[in-house]
Amino acid sequence: MRLAMGVEYDGSSYHGWQLQKSGVRSVQQQIEQALGKVAAHPVRVFCAGRTDTGVHGEGQVIHFDTPAVRSLRGWVLGTNVNLPDDVNINWVHEVSDEFHARFSATSRSYRYVILNRPTRSAIWRDRAVWIHHVLDEVRMQQAAESLVGTHDFSSYRAIGCQAKSPVRTVTNLIVNRINDRVVIEITANAFLHHMVRNIAGVLMTIGRGDQPVEWSREVLDHRDRTLGGVTAPPQGLYLVDVDYPAEFGLPSASKV
Amino acid sequence: MRLAMGVEYDGSSYHGWQLQKSGVRSVQQQIEQALGKVAAHPVRVFCAGRTDTGVHGEGQVIHFDTPAVRSLRGWVLGTNVNLPDDVNINWVHEVSDEFHARFSATSRSYRYVILNRPTRSAIWRDRAVWIHHVLDEVRMQQAAESLVGTHDFSSYRAIGCQAKSPVRTVTNLIVNRINDRVVIEITANAFLHHMVRNIAGVLMTIGRGDQPVEWSREVLDHRDRTLGGVTAPPQGLYLVDVDYPAEFGLPSASKV
Repeated sequence: MRLAMGVEYDGSSYHGWQLQKSGVRSVQQQIEQALGKVAAHPVRVFCAGRTDTGVHGEGQVIHFDTPAVRSLRGWVLGTNVNLPDDVNINWVHEVSDEFHARFSATSRSYRYVILNRPTRSAIWRDRAVWIHHVLDEVRMQQAAESLVGTHDFSSYRAIGCQAKSPVRTVTNLIVNRINDRVVIEITANAFLHHMVRNIAGVLMTIGRGDQPVEWSREVLDHRDRTLGGVTAPPQGLYLVDVDYPAEFGLPSASKV
Repeated sequence: MRLAMGVEYDGSSYHGWQLQKSGVRSVQQQIEQALGKVAAHPVRVFCAGRTDTGVHGEGQVIHFDTPAVRSLRGWVLGTNVNLPDDVNINWVHEVSDEFHARFSATSRSYRYVILNRPTRSAIWRDRAVWIHHVLDEVRMQQAAESLVGTHDFSSYRAIGCQAKSPVRTVTNLIVNRINDRVVIEITANAFLHHMVRNIAGVLMTIGRGDQPVEWSREVLDHRDRTLGGVTAPPQGLYLVDVDYPAEFGLPSASKV
């Protein structure tokens, strides 16, 4: 039987999603340990999008195979009981064997949160990046618009990114201000490594007036990471939602 | 010279605001240590409202006296450098000797955040109380209305509360839902010990249908804490703002 689950985590204390050598805490390790206790056998999980150290998951999706028979409620409660309090399961759903958390996904959505005020914040310290230069969110939104669509995002991928193609389709990229927070929301069919944080870095540079609005497009056209902007810090980034074809019947992540 | 400061803290790791016996971490202890380094003499601070273990401060206000001469920017930056990252100063303002953070305050505002959904949340675990029973925020708002005004809040104060009078004036009490969060905002001239958490406890009981809307008023009329409701947990509570007469010229807390 194949099960899909919605996973939420505060990434602050983890070296990212992916299982690593022993002694390094990862979210995947926590999930597999907890599921292993509920299933009573070793479990290997596959996720929709691997997140880096310090990045948060609100709507991460995983799948795994198990012969164990438990109620859906039993899977959620049992797994949560065995997880630390900075990781939890939000839902579980039985899926067909054709479902794959990564390869079946049709789009991913991320949110990047910037706290834009003169002083740092105790409450937001691990949940947003703090920028004390005043950001112009209208300029950021204008700059964002040239990244929407299907493009070669070579300038916005990490040097070590192992994806075969640098072409991705961004279907939504919106910048909003909510009091002293500037929030970037982005949806694409898939993302290259560091793509959201590199886009956030370019938009912030434009927002503080250090580059013109057109720069986001110029960086894109270079197709050269070494001519790109800085990578924005991880603590502002949230994987908020993953979409799948309706036939799998998965719940959408609750939008916060 | 007397200085007022705006203080923010994530209360998760502290045994409340107030200085306690050595070995117990309090926010006041952290602030006094940091200010002592900047001022180069021992500093004693006074706050607008003492918060309990686990309660957060967004708009706490303090004052202290010092002969040290520093720029306002120097006070903020110097103090923040000497504070742990879960406490910070947001502003500093020189005030007259008549100013007292506690006694000059004309009102305090708190926010209580409830995460209302089927599963617990990794991201909100220390920043909201999780209630899985569905809450009816319209009933909660109706119940809240009978607490607005000047009343004897004996039923809503902690047993050990040392205030001389149980009479307080609530000028604003609003319950709103934002997706899966139910947020209570309350302003009063002053608060009794545990008053916000006891009001939140009664409103949540009414919101889940375990008591009628009129119960908040009935509890009030009893003037007896032993006939009151449960005290809601501390992690949902934020001190968001303190108001002073305009003559002191203090900034208002930034509303998040």
